[in-house]
Amino acid sequence: MTIYKAPLNDMRFALYDVLGAEAVLGRLEGGEAHSRDLLDAVLDEAARFNEQVLAPLNASGDAEGCHYDKATAAVTTPKGFKEAYHQYAEGGWAGLTAHEKFGGQALPAVLGALVKEMIDSANLAWGIYPLLSHGATDALEHHGTEWQQDTFLKPLVEGRWTGTMCLTEPQAGSDLGLLKTRAEPNEDGSYRINGTKIFISAGEHDFAENIVHLVLARLPDAPAGSRGISMLVVPKFKVNADGSLGERNGAAAGAIEHKMGIKGSATCVMNFDDAQGWLVGPAHKGLVAMFTMMNAARLAVGIQGLAVSERALQNSLNYARERLQMRALSGAKLPEKPADPLTVHPDVRRMLLTQRAFVEGGRVLAAYAALQSDIEARDTDPQARKQAGELLSFLIPIAKGLLTEAAQECTKEALQIFGGHGFIAEHGMEQFVRDARIITLYEGTTQIQALDLLGRKIMQLQGAGLKHFLGEVAAFCQANAGNEAVKAFVGPLAAATKAWGELTQAIAAKAQANPEELGAAAVDYLYYSGYITLAYFLARSVLAAESSQLLSADGKQAKRDTATFYFARILPRIHLHKAAIDAGVETLPELL
Amino acid sequence: MTIYKAPLNDMRFALYDVLGAEAVLGRLEGGEAHSRDLLDAVLDEAARFNEQVLAPLNASGDAEGCHYDKATAAVTTPKGFKEAYHQYAEGGWAGLTAHEKFGGQALPAVLGALVKEMIDSANLAWGIYPLLSHGATDALEHHGTEWQQDTFLKPLVEGRWTGTMCLTEPQAGSDLGLLKTRAEPNEDGSYRINGTKIFISAGEHDFAENIVHLVLARLPDAPAGSRGISMLVVPKFKVNADGSLGERNGAAAGAIEHKMGIKGSATCVMNFDDAQGWLVGPAHKGLVAMFTMMNAARLAVGIQGLAVSERALQNSLNYARERLQMRALSGAKLPEKPADPLTVHPDVRRMLLTQRAFVEGGRVLAAYAALQSDIEARDTDPQARKQAGELLSFLIPIAKGLLTEAAQECTKEALQIFGGHGFIAEHGMEQFVRDARIITLYEGTTQIQALDLLGRKIMQLQGAGLKHFLGEVAAFCQANAGNEAVKAFVGPLAAATKAWGELTQAIAAKAQANPEELGAAAVDYLYYSGYITLAYFLARSVLAAESSQLLSADGKQAKRDTATFYFARILPRIHLHKAAIDAGVETLPELL
Repeated sequence: MTIYKAPLNDMRFALYDVLGAEAVLGRLEGGEAHSRDLLDAVLDEAARFNEQVLAPLNASGDAEGCHYDKATAAVTTPKGFKEAYHQYAEGGWAGLTAHEKFGGQALPAVLGALVKEMIDSANLAWGIYPLLSHGATDALEHHGTEWQQDTFLKPLVEGRWTGTMCLTEPQAGSDLGLLKTRAEPNEDGSYRINGTKIFISAGEHDFAENIVHLVLARLPDAPAGSRGISMLVVPKFKVNADGSLGERNGAAAGAIEHKMGIKGSATCVMNFDDAQGWLVGPAHKGLVAMFTMMNAARLAVGIQGLAVSERALQNSLNYARERLQMRALSGAKLPEKPADPLTVHPDVRRMLLTQRAFVEGGRVLAAYAALQSDIEARDTDPQARKQAGELLSFLIPIAKGLLTEAAQECTKEALQIFGGHGFIAEHGMEQFVRDARIITLYEGTTQIQALDLLGRKIMQLQGAGLKHFLGEVAAFCQANAGNEAVKAFVGPLAAATKAWGELTQAIAAKAQANPEELGAAAVDYLYYSGYITLAYFLARSVLAAESSQLLSADGKQAKRDTATFYFARILPRIHLHKAAIDAGVETLPELL
Repeated sequence: MTIYKAPLNDMRFALYDVLGAEAVLGRLEGGEAHSRDLLDAVLDEAARFNEQVLAPLNASGDAEGCHYDKATAAVTTPKGFKEAYHQYAEGGWAGLTAHEKFGGQALPAVLGALVKEMIDSANLAWGIYPLLSHGATDALEHHGTEWQQDTFLKPLVEGRWTGTMCLTEPQAGSDLGLLKTRAEPNEDGSYRINGTKIFISAGEHDFAENIVHLVLARLPDAPAGSRGISMLVVPKFKVNADGSLGERNGAAAGAIEHKMGIKGSATCVMNFDDAQGWLVGPAHKGLVAMFTMMNAARLAVGIQGLAVSERALQNSLNYARERLQMRALSGAKLPEKPADPLTVHPDVRRMLLTQRAFVEGGRVLAAYAALQSDIEARDTDPQARKQAGELLSFLIPIAKGLLTEAAQECTKEALQIFGGHGFIAEHGMEQFVRDARIITLYEGTTQIQALDLLGRKIMQLQGAGLKHFLGEVAAFCQANAGNEAVKAFVGPLAAATKAWGELTQAIAAKAQANPEELGAAAVDYLYYSGYITLAYFLARSVLAAESSQLLSADGKQAKRDTATFYFARILPRIHLHKAAIDAGVETLPELL
């Protein structure tokens, strides 16, 4: 059995001390309602729910998995999942960050991000159901008609219904331009949808009485490729004028997938068979609407990476402190015991510190990004809103790419600390590895994030977000160059940041001559950017720790230790990635 | 369904062209019998058996797993496993490399290594049963009495019985000194064994009529710790004087483990309850005997890494060539198709080339190491035998550590190429990831290999193996400094080799001041050494390709491409590991 205790103190440290969220949120529209007391109360309540309700269902949900009944096309989720969802909905968690006019609580996105981390640490598979509802909520908030919002959005916000994103088809994965699902107009202004979607998370389940599918499809007059994709809202049950459920719509699960992990999450093949739906947003502009929800979902998947790493860390640290095996090389540390604890071995500490650096740095990164979305949505200064939007859009592929890849490393190291026991199901560590494996794949693979970062956010958008971010880091370095507490980090950080700008220029120049150089550089550039980004947030954490009321003396020292470790042993990876980028596409020939 | 085709041509290239095994084997004692024709025929036959018999059982064995019946303590292996084993035994594969006087074929270990690779590519879980028999065979060949060899070894070599290695106990994993199983003398010279062992691969199954356990235990007068461990041979069924099976011995499986992967391999809890056994080798010297089998087993586990990576590569390359998704950044390559194949994307090629470099370099490394064991056993020159033994013992932790860790990377990248489909069980890629996860843990974790390399093979043994190896690489570099075919690789290789020697000296100096520095450096040093070792074998492969009759023009170019990729994008990792080593133990503080 694995343990999970919400890391409330470190969350508060990231939120208040590192990011100064109290002041930032206070100056936003509606911010006067978001007192620290309120945020703290929500965090406490979330910790209780996640530790007590969701965490105990994690292993059993994996062992039991979901079941599909062919006769009824119904999906049964693991024992306890449905009841946990009802508690979640009753607690108002579904509408935590949704707009008040749809029944939400309009709490800050940054708070939502911390709550999301707890959910995903407690139960990654379960957390996928509300994640999909969030995506649907976002899309309908931004692009739905008033009727669509009344009919579909409000029950989503209440948690009575759940949502999905129906994108992938067998021949159309990363390449949505290839999708074939058709939507033909009915006389009443609705559409008939026909086609098959795969990999639809939460496509069918027993949590809620209705499911709201947001489906990408082609209208009859659609241009080919990704410019001819429209978004439609397609409920599982049609909805009567009074909001009650009408007849069953032609949208049903045809099967569920047998997967490596997240077995409690129902991944469905969805068959649309003359299903009735309604256009969301303009015709052929479905990808724009989809990216609204996808951006939020990508940050959420980055948070999944952070979350599963946090739980892996808690368990491996716990084990390393308790398991007695071999003596320290410098002599017995606990001579009265049969052996010393694993923590006496430097390489065990390396594996633990690797996890801690990614978790604690990643937590600040995720919260910082979420805070940008609060600023983008509610700052009174349009310039601040614009800048926050650019920063957010730049940081999303970094957060998604880096934190999901780091989760592979963290869960691997956590399992390794358990030795052979890590491979055995009952210890629970191998579930973290299996669950984590999906996150570098869905919502855009690491390769897609890398192309989004380098091709779109840097090249097409002239790197506005990068410029803001480099400026912020440079300002931090300048302000703290003489500060004893952080000056050991400021030097390498300033150098790395300068090199980042230069490397970006160099890639742009190479790509002008040969666009394939972009593809050859992208993933290395993503890591390169990610490691520097994390270095910045870890250095800021050391500075914030100095004056923190939340951290003990040991806690402050721990922040310094984490940054020291990271700057000495992780940040140098940027040189490796630079060498790979410099080597260019000519070192990646066709495989003969 | 996954594919598997034995890479016979690349195996022959490694064996004959890179390593010149024909000449080496020919000059060894008994080598006149080992003609190229014979070796080729064995390889062909092995390919047939593994492609046709074992490979088709890989996915079904994973899905079905092993079953334990509490009432009879019997284990049922997946459908087809038992029959495959009977074919294996009838084909004489069990005794392929065993001594002729025990009924073996006494074929070279290097041939055994290539056959082992095929078995493990075809079916990693199944391959664990004969792997354990090999270990028991080795131990009894070297340390058994004549009676033990007649009674237990011959049926092992015939494949009628199988073997195990019973080391681990719940409190004694990496630290065998903590083991508690007791062996008390009977009046007839045998011993009564009592205790519980865990993680015993092939501890119980339905392949064979008897199982020969080699058990580590303490005699009543044993000193504490690892100096008080003895090895005993304990059959499942006692053996009558005529070799027929007698009564059931008190050695039985109490349970099997539910694991992340290798589900077709029965991992048993073994209860020894007044079991009768016989001492193998001298009292209290069990670890020495165990290391005889462990060294061979460690190389075999390195080969498991190579093998699972080979199969992952075959499948991901196949998929990347067939799957159409998106266009090349420089414009459509197959405009008549709806999209281009994945191979047009440089990062997909990076993931494929990463696998190919580790597989092809790893194959030469494994074969080279196995060839040293042939030389050690059968060279007529005692000096050559000694040197080969030192080289082998130095290379084993490198091969085990690097090839098993590389398998984590290779199987991860192979799955990544499949995108979301990689996570779905039916594509088979996730099984490779799950199966591969055990190999950095058993037969000594990566951390244990690293300490064996740096602490024992380098520091305690004054680095004799390293000196031979550095000398060999230096001679290669010197001889080929002006050779057009390889000079691009010789320069970086010579520099890296020189740095390797210097780094070793620097660590030794640091460790004198503080032994904890060894533990802080060991894993990074293992990778550092491994990457240079592989660079050498890839450079040698390029040279060998020039004059190879086995490779086409494309095949020769492919060897150059692989080395170019590796030297540009993988070998620079050594700088990262050096930075980590330089950072030292002070960057790995206690976790507060």
